[in-house]
Amino acid sequence: MTRSVKDVAEFVGGRVVGDAAVPVSRVASVASAGGGDLVFVEDGGGLEAALLGGASAILAGEFARGVEGKTVLREGKTVVIVEHPRLAFARVAAWLSEAGVGEESRREVGVHGSAVVHASARLGAGIAVGALAVIGENAVIGDGSWIGAGAVIGAGVMVGKKCEIYPRVVIYAGTSLADRVIVHAGAVLGSDGFGYVRDGKTGRYEKFPQMGTLRIGDDVEIGANTTIDRGALDATVIGRGSKIDNLVHVGHNVVMGEDVVLAAQVGISGSCVIEDGVVMGGQAGIGDHAQIEAGVILGGQSGVLPKKVMRGKGVVFWGTPARPLREYLKQLAALARLGKKG
Amino acid sequence: MTRSVKDVAEFVGGRVVGDAAVPVSRVASVASAGGGDLVFVEDGGGLEAALLGGASAILAGEFARGVEGKTVLREGKTVVIVEHPRLAFARVAAWLSEAGVGEESRREVGVHGSAVVHASARLGAGIAVGALAVIGENAVIGDGSWIGAGAVIGAGVMVGKKCEIYPRVVIYAGTSLADRVIVHAGAVLGSDGFGYVRDGKTGRYEKFPQMGTLRIGDDVEIGANTTIDRGALDATVIGRGSKIDNLVHVGHNVVMGEDVVLAAQVGISGSCVIEDGVVMGGQAGIGDHAQIEAGVILGGQSGVLPKKVMRGKGVVFWGTPARPLREYLKQLAALARLGKKG
Amino acid sequence: MTRSVKDVAEFVGGRVVGDAAVPVSRVASVASAGGGDLVFVEDGGGLEAALLGGASAILAGEFARGVEGKTVLREGKTVVIVEHPRLAFARVAAWLSEAGVGEESRREVGVHGSAVVHASARLGAGIAVGALAVIGENAVIGDGSWIGAGAVIGAGVMVGKKCEIYPRVVIYAGTSLADRVIVHAGAVLGSDGFGYVRDGKTGRYEKFPQMGTLRIGDDVEIGANTTIDRGALDATVIGRGSKIDNLVHVGHNVVMGEDVVLAAQVGISGSCVIEDGVVMGGQAGIGDHAQIEAGVILGGQSGVLPKKVMRGKGVVFWGTPARPLREYLKQLAALARLGKKG
Repeated sequence: MTRSVKDVAEFVGGRVVGDAAVPVSRVASVASAGGGDLVFVEDGGGLEAALLGGASAILAGEFARGVEGKTVLREGKTVVIVEHPRLAFARVAAWLSEAGVGEESRREVGVHGSAVVHASARLGAGIAVGALAVIGENAVIGDGSWIGAGAVIGAGVMVGKKCEIYPRVVIYAGTSLADRVIVHAGAVLGSDGFGYVRDGKTGRYEKFPQMGTLRIGDDVEIGANTTIDRGALDATVIGRGSKIDNLVHVGHNVVMGEDVVLAAQVGISGSCVIEDGVVMGGQAGIGDHAQIEAGVILGGQSGVLPKKVMRGKGVVFWGTPARPLREYLKQLAALARLGKKG
Repeated sequence: MTRSVKDVAEFVGGRVVGDAAVPVSRVASVASAGGGDLVFVEDGGGLEAALLGGASAILAGEFARGVEGKTVLREGKTVVIVEHPRLAFARVAAWLSEAGVGEESRREVGVHGSAVVHASARLGAGIAVGALAVIGENAVIGDGSWIGAGAVIGAGVMVGKKCEIYPRVVIYAGTSLADRVIVHAGAVLGSDGFGYVRDGKTGRYEKFPQMGTLRIGDDVEIGANTTIDRGALDATVIGRGSKIDNLVHVGHNVVMGEDVVLAAQVGISGSCVIEDGVVMGGQAGIGDHAQIEAGVILGGQSGVLPKKVMRGKGVVFWGTPARPLREYLKQLAALARLGKKG
Repeated sequence: MTRSVKDVAEFVGGRVVGDAAVPVSRVASVASAGGGDLVFVEDGGGLEAALLGGASAILAGEFARGVEGKTVLREGKTVVIVEHPRLAFARVAAWLSEAGVGEESRREVGVHGSAVVHASARLGAGIAVGALAVIGENAVIGDGSWIGAGAVIGAGVMVGKKCEIYPRVVIYAGTSLADRVIVHAGAVLGSDGFGYVRDGKTGRYEKFPQMGTLRIGDDVEIGANTTIDRGALDATVIGRGSKIDNLVHVGHNVVMGEDVVLAAQVGISGSCVIEDGVVMGGQAGIGDHAQIEAGVILGGQSGVLPKKVMRGKGVVFWGTPARPLREYLKQLAALARLGKKG
């Protein structure tokens, strides 16, 4: 199935310049696009490149208003002018994919014959369960969700609607996912937290109970091989819309707000509070019981000490221990001068 | 099955204040506790909160001696006074769980029909093998151990008694686990170390043999998606009682002592010696052939250079390269002053 | 099957000192070697130790020329003198292993009865597919490759010849591997990149399309639980002969050259260019769109800012932001002096 540029423009609320009947079946990058492909550009240079490239249609911003006169346009390219071309592009990509237009092979609805589904599990309508997946006792899978090959869904786990659980994900008992949660391959959700009590007499560590839960909100995406521990006695919580990259660690009892962004290999120690809209660069590390207040931005590899409170919407911190960026840059410059004198 | 507070007090060697007949079936946090729950407190404030909360019984330290007079106590709360309430709480939690009192669903003894167990594997008494687990040629699983769904136990692997191998763990051939080892989901044990020889003529790397073994001692716990490589020609060793968090990397030929604690995302390069009782904060990194002597404490994100020796029981090091904490704090303070002058 | 030292010497182009008929069946370390074992030494001290140890044969460099007179040699040890003993040792190890001489159990050729192979998948000659592996629609597995137990090979994935895919690896649709690629357990190849567009009105993140591909060249080795994302719209590329350790993250659209070496827990953000022969120490982190030019060496835990270009074959950089090593060491020394004044 293929859409016309007219359909695309209506879907994103854009204005067509050129032939609105041009068919579009896929999104692509400007460099790789061919016939039937839609691309997006964010400035005049990008527009020039796209006009010279192979794409059939181009999503562009208001800067492209004067494009009508271009020769290439007369030769069959169509431009759709929208307020935010990147966002429009993302939405069209998802829409083409939903509509079955894209190349991605659809997941077959139904339960693969080799999957091991406990008799007491409740499976919603229109779900797809891949080969050799395991679904435990009393687990609940919501309508339209997909459980990939070899994933292991523990006893009593609740998976909401339209979730995508990629192959080999493991979800421990005591975990619940809301709707439209995406979990990439190899992620482990609800594992035991890292908590021990040392016996002063023997010097040995004994396991502190790790019996809590993990609750994940709507529209969360979790990267490949990321691990999120359940609470020790209470809950670990990941708020709606938060996006977590690959190989991230989130410790027990962490309470994370909405629309938080954690880049790859970030580590959040136990009992931290990460408020709405926090952004962390790759490999940032947060000590236990720290509080990162709403909107704080932590640079890559920065470190926050245990129990520390970081504050300031849109304020960027960097370094270990993390300092306001301007301050830290001054310190780095001073150190560089000192090294030269050295 | 439910225990009385009297039973609990006997088990932990504590003294009951209040009604010893009160039944307890679960541990909980002070905030979430309800009837039948046991909580623990470590100071007067905690005790006040617990007395006002929903728990039926409270483990407290000697500081709670004067609690008899409290109104709430007369209204049905019971306090058990012990030397170390957190430790007692951990032990009661494990004891209730073992006794089948807790909520955790028990693992069914036996081999799931979908598991693939080699005919030559030797399975101990009372073991549980989950759905779609794979147990290789000549592997040995000790009495009372659990192999989770989808775990892959390589040829000749030895798993001791009462081990817990969570779903999707992979154990390569050449690995042996002693007793009561817990391995969380997705961990990989005994993978090839990272060793190559560069051919000076072609500039290409050729694989150095990675044919050694991995030996893991009693009571070790290994976190989700952690990786521990086997030795190149000899053994990688993890000593008794060591606790390793999620996403940790331990390289080939590392020899780790007893009761070592590694927080999440720590990385230990090949051939390091990590002596008894070492503690490392999250994301610490150790260069190859370094030696971290007994009892050293490395702060989060700190880094130790290859071949370096770190020494001092209870001495805290921080930064990269890791320096004694006091020294490093002075340097940070001096840098901050310098930056202000800027 | 066993080889004579004569065979070994011929294979590596070495010169035998002592009895060339001595049989060799295994490689080992000097410390653990016994009868029938071959070891290697790189200096006179190593040679002394090896002559006193249990090995039957010793690979040594030209420094061992004078060894003929040694008593131990008369007592049955044989030395093979080669230009590069470590490289020769690595090659003999691989050769003995290929020849079926070593202890490693061979992988059974054929498809295990419990594997789930799509009818449309094309399997080459002499391949081995382990228990409970899943091979998707239209996937292609080249001659002589091994797919370990529980691995999941996505739809349309191309695996070349003589590849080794360890248990529980997941390969997403859109990924292709050339020949002799080794992928260790738990690695995830071709997962979605971390790309979102924020809707300025709602503050929410929407998924940017992640529909590109991942191409991995000949002779690449990828460590356990490492993750490599596919391109967003184009390709992520890993060049021939690159070696990637455990728990490494490679983001979407990264283009990596040949013979690159990434130690454990390195993180490469999206759209970076990593040229031929780059070496990174453990836990190094690279910001998005950075370019690390040919032959650059980055120390452990060093960090490179987004869009930064690092240049200089054989030049070592360290710290965050990464500076030339000499410069950084001067800065560290200056800081130490400053701290003492404090």
